Amino acid sequence: MKIILVGANGTIGQAITKSLSDLNAEIIAVGQNSGELQVNITSEESIKALFEKVGPFDGLISAAGSGYYGPLEKMSAGEAIKGLGNKLMGQVNLVLIGKDYINAGGFFTLTSGNLAEEGNVNSANLGMINGALNGFVVNAALEMPKNIRLNVVSPSVLTESVAKYGEPENRESIPGEEVAAAYKQTVTEKINGQVLKAYGKLKTV
Amino acid sequence: MKIILVGANGTIGQAITKSLSDLNAEIIAVGQNSGELQVNITSEESIKALFEKVGPFDGLISAAGSGYYGPLEKMSAGEAIKGLGNKLMGQVNLVLIGKDYINAGGFFTLTSGNLAEEGNVNSANLGMINGALNGFVVNAALEMPKNIRLNVVSPSVLTESVAKYGEPENRESIPGEEVAAAYKQTVTEKINGQVLKAYGKLKTV
Repeated sequence: MKIILVGANGTIGQAITKSLSDLNAEIIAVGQNSGELQVNITSEESIKALFEKVGPFDGLISAAGSGYYGPLEKMSAGEAIKGLGNKLMGQVNLVLIGKDYINAGGFFTLTSGNLAEEGNVNSANLGMINGALNGFVVNAALEMPKNIRLNVVSPSVLTESVAKYGEPENRESIPGEEVAAAYKQTVTEKINGQVLKAYGKLKTV
Repeated sequence: MKIILVGANGTIGQAITKSLSDLNAEIIAVGQNSGELQVNITSEESIKALFEKVGPFDGLISAAGSGYYGPLEKMSAGEAIKGLGNKLMGQVNLVLIGKDYINAGGFFTLTSGNLAEEGNVNSANLGMINGALNGFVVNAALEMPKNIRLNVVSPSVLTESVAKYGEPENRESIPGEEVAAAYKQTVTEKINGQVLKAYGKLKTV
């Protein structure tokens, strides 16, 4: 089984790589600047070039993409659209383009996040993006050709990312290993159209 | 109280108008081509011009915007982005621009839809849009200035729209009057950052 992992060098990507190591799978590590192969997910041409290079594959996991993180007051429409063009449409395009390249019965697994439904400051754009990814997956999964499965993992802040994003207010952080288990489930189980919520435990009052 | 109703002439807009009639409020009916005033929500200039014309106001309800509705196979990235620029960014821009014009303590109420979490065929773009609107609201509501409230109503297919969209598979359609009650709640109750789900009853097996 050949699996493309976009965002392999990121915090989540590294945890996924570790988690999949006991499967008999060839993992193609892809990054924007790092990895075995490179892709710019904001470019349809770059995505096509990636699939042309890889050839037939059985699954793609994306843990890639960014959006505007900052005060709402400074979020212009342009900033919001830039984020939609990156983490949202970048991952959507991996599916829309990749479905013509993937083997029958293959799978796509994307990454959203709990900001889709749990509000935080500075996160209006990421909330939009994450909500849109969940909404895309539950609908598009019903129409994927060739029995291709499509799911999305929605993590809350990882323990490994607390230094970068801060400790979440309402939840404990979740270890990367637990988040990676959700991605692995989309590889090994015949689930489709699911939003797998990998959230840390709610803090007690 | 002065309330701007964008999409006043639509099925939901008409139900909202009726539902608010017992409040002592001035409703400014706005449409793309109909109504007392016109706005093109895909144009930031047109939105600004609307607010300049209306002057100070206390609330804005949007039941406006469209997206691509059709087979996933025919949904190009361009089609998807067009929809994001209409029902999503159109409504987001009503808030981003309107917050500078609205009176302190005012409210914005947007419209998403159950496709954000309940999949259907032909609906990948609307699912994205509706999910993004919910995600925007739960996050942006935390950062609105001047004690402005921000909520979103997420309806499933209205009884009045069954002729157009067909009978939903898993749910009964919901009468416009019941959907309008959710919008009214955002006017009369001090709620903020809520996704009000106005869904028809689940069909029994």
